[in-house]
Amino acid sequence: MLPADLVSKASIDVHTHIYLPTYVEMLRKRDSVPRVVDRNGQSRLLILPGKDEEDSPDAGRPFGREYFDIGGKIRFMDNHGIAVSVLSLANPWVDFLPPAEAVALSRVFNDDMEAVCAASGGRLRGFGVLPLKAPAAAAEELARISTLRHLRGVIIGTSGAGNGLHDPALDPVWAEAARGGHMVFVHPHYGLGNAAYEGTGHALFLALGFPFETSAAIARLILAGVLDRHSKLKLLVAHAGGTLPYLAGRLDSCVGTERQVDFTLKAAPSEYLKRMYFDSIGYHTPALLALIALVGHERIMFGTDHPFFPPRDATLDLATCLWPSPQENYAAIEGLPAEQQQAILNANARRIMVL
Amino acid sequence: MLPADLVSKASIDVHTHIYLPTYVEMLRKRDSVPRVVDRNGQSRLLILPGKDEEDSPDAGRPFGREYFDIGGKIRFMDNHGIAVSVLSLANPWVDFLPPAEAVALSRVFNDDMEAVCAASGGRLRGFGVLPLKAPAAAAEELARISTLRHLRGVIIGTSGAGNGLHDPALDPVWAEAARGGHMVFVHPHYGLGNAAYEGTGHALFLALGFPFETSAAIARLILAGVLDRHSKLKLLVAHAGGTLPYLAGRLDSCVGTERQVDFTLKAAPSEYLKRMYFDSIGYHTPALLALIALVGHERIMFGTDHPFFPPRDATLDLATCLWPSPQENYAAIEGLPAEQQQAILNANARRIMVL
Repeated sequence: MLPADLVSKASIDVHTHIYLPTYVEMLRKRDSVPRVVDRNGQSRLLILPGKDEEDSPDAGRPFGREYFDIGGKIRFMDNHGIAVSVLSLANPWVDFLPPAEAVALSRVFNDDMEAVCAASGGRLRGFGVLPLKAPAAAAEELARISTLRHLRGVIIGTSGAGNGLHDPALDPVWAEAARGGHMVFVHPHYGLGNAAYEGTGHALFLALGFPFETSAAIARLILAGVLDRHSKLKLLVAHAGGTLPYLAGRLDSCVGTERQVDFTLKAAPSEYLKRMYFDSIGYHTPALLALIALVGHERIMFGTDHPFFPPRDATLDLATCLWPSPQENYAAIEGLPAEQQQAILNANARRIMVL
Repeated sequence: MLPADLVSKASIDVHTHIYLPTYVEMLRKRDSVPRVVDRNGQSRLLILPGKDEEDSPDAGRPFGREYFDIGGKIRFMDNHGIAVSVLSLANPWVDFLPPAEAVALSRVFNDDMEAVCAASGGRLRGFGVLPLKAPAAAAEELARISTLRHLRGVIIGTSGAGNGLHDPALDPVWAEAARGGHMVFVHPHYGLGNAAYEGTGHALFLALGFPFETSAAIARLILAGVLDRHSKLKLLVAHAGGTLPYLAGRLDSCVGTERQVDFTLKAAPSEYLKRMYFDSIGYHTPALLALIALVGHERIMFGTDHPFFPPRDATLDLATCLWPSPQENYAAIEGLPAEQQQAILNANARRIMVL
């Protein structure tokens, strides 16, 4: 248990990333994306497929201490009113590794995450990672993660074993997640519709490509009947659900009038969304209003997406300044009724993530 | 002017399509998509790129009278409480034609649309089409359209002259639209992220691919400064704005933290959305709540998307049955305060479309 003064006040951040020291070591040794390179005396993080691969000095993003320093994470939390963070390894996790390596390194990274959280004096919990290319091993690792006292489920990308989250090959993973009640945090990495964003830097890849990717992955998972087969599966959907809370009615309607494919679902697609969990990372109140109207405010938990989206002004000290992105997400929540604010900032995460 | 009893009661539908007889004639003569073919004694409409091109008997969709019969449109309106419809040619308009042919046929289709609306006893108004591959000719045709008494602007796809709506080549069209105060109705056709929807029939192509396409096109148009150069441009964005009313905050944030590209806009991207117009085709109240919270209810106008999304039950008589899709959109509006309902169903369109 956390000290009472920590759990009852301030925010709980369920969407906040770190590259663990062992992971950074691996990224520095690689010669293709994802990797960390030194260019013109600066370390740069290259992660996005088809996006960060150029040799130019401004490819990717500056790779500062905020990406790996646990002390810096705690200071960020202090500066932004965050009592507890549920850390996750940042994308692309172990997705890009050959299966055997992914299996071995998932164990290393999960043990490291447990150690980091255990040493944090109650400030940190963590999500583990899974070698989804080896689904049987992933299911085993998921069961093992539940024995690590500071971990609270897993974070996964949308590629699964290589064919998306609707792939039947993932059923052993879903079965173990449902059996054990492990939260599965679904997060984008690959982007969707990427060719349409060329010439806009990272802006539209992140603003549109990320939520589009999440939306397509979750929609396909629903249409494939994963939640009919595994009704107790607990999914946490990144970035306020991508776009699905807005498109849920359209999705129901298009599935309802589809003539070529019979999806044989037990319920309308939007009904499955109402059983999922969401972070509050929508950046403006209108998105939260739609999300709450669809799923209720009890399923929404505060998140920051730190250390991504640092301030544009490169002269700021990232360790001490206020970051615009979490401030925007706080402001979005301030547009809601007071009891909903408290639930989203703190109480929901305490209950749902068992803090 | 319309008779007073028509304009003051029932709904006005600003998003409703027709394939004019001259257009159908063209589609029947073609041997590649878009086309109308007869298979197993049934006419089928093949329009979607990379989707409807198979030779299978269930490619595309059944092509019944509802797609071209004006009398049927009026009966649909009577059955669904619609006083006036602002008709638009259905996708893909003249996008696929060589420029010279597109120029010539746009004139034909626009004159036909004017004639159809003029003969409707006040029940119909129309949007014209533009040969965007020939921007100078398109600007001229737009000026000519404003002399056709029953037309109220134009409908366009997202491809523009071939390089999207952010293409500087379209500036003559935007300039004329802004100068004349012509409404430009932006509608999807091509889909975005289509490979991710394989195996789901039309369901996800339409539920996700369409709104993603619209969102990317409008976002790029904003980021390219089109609305800074043409501040009086009036845009009507299909399907409740795609996903942008949900993602507007995220778009602002991602543009605000972008380091590789300086967009030099006069305002945050969401500010431009607040100057646009939207149909109400969101299929559930949560989407409308977000849209209203972002842009206000005064900019939203009822739409049905008829004759697309017919009932799945093939035994129903499409000419007399109630269609689920407009019923869902009526139900979504019924979740709003009464004065907002009245504005969205009738008063906004009367004012904005000058009916």
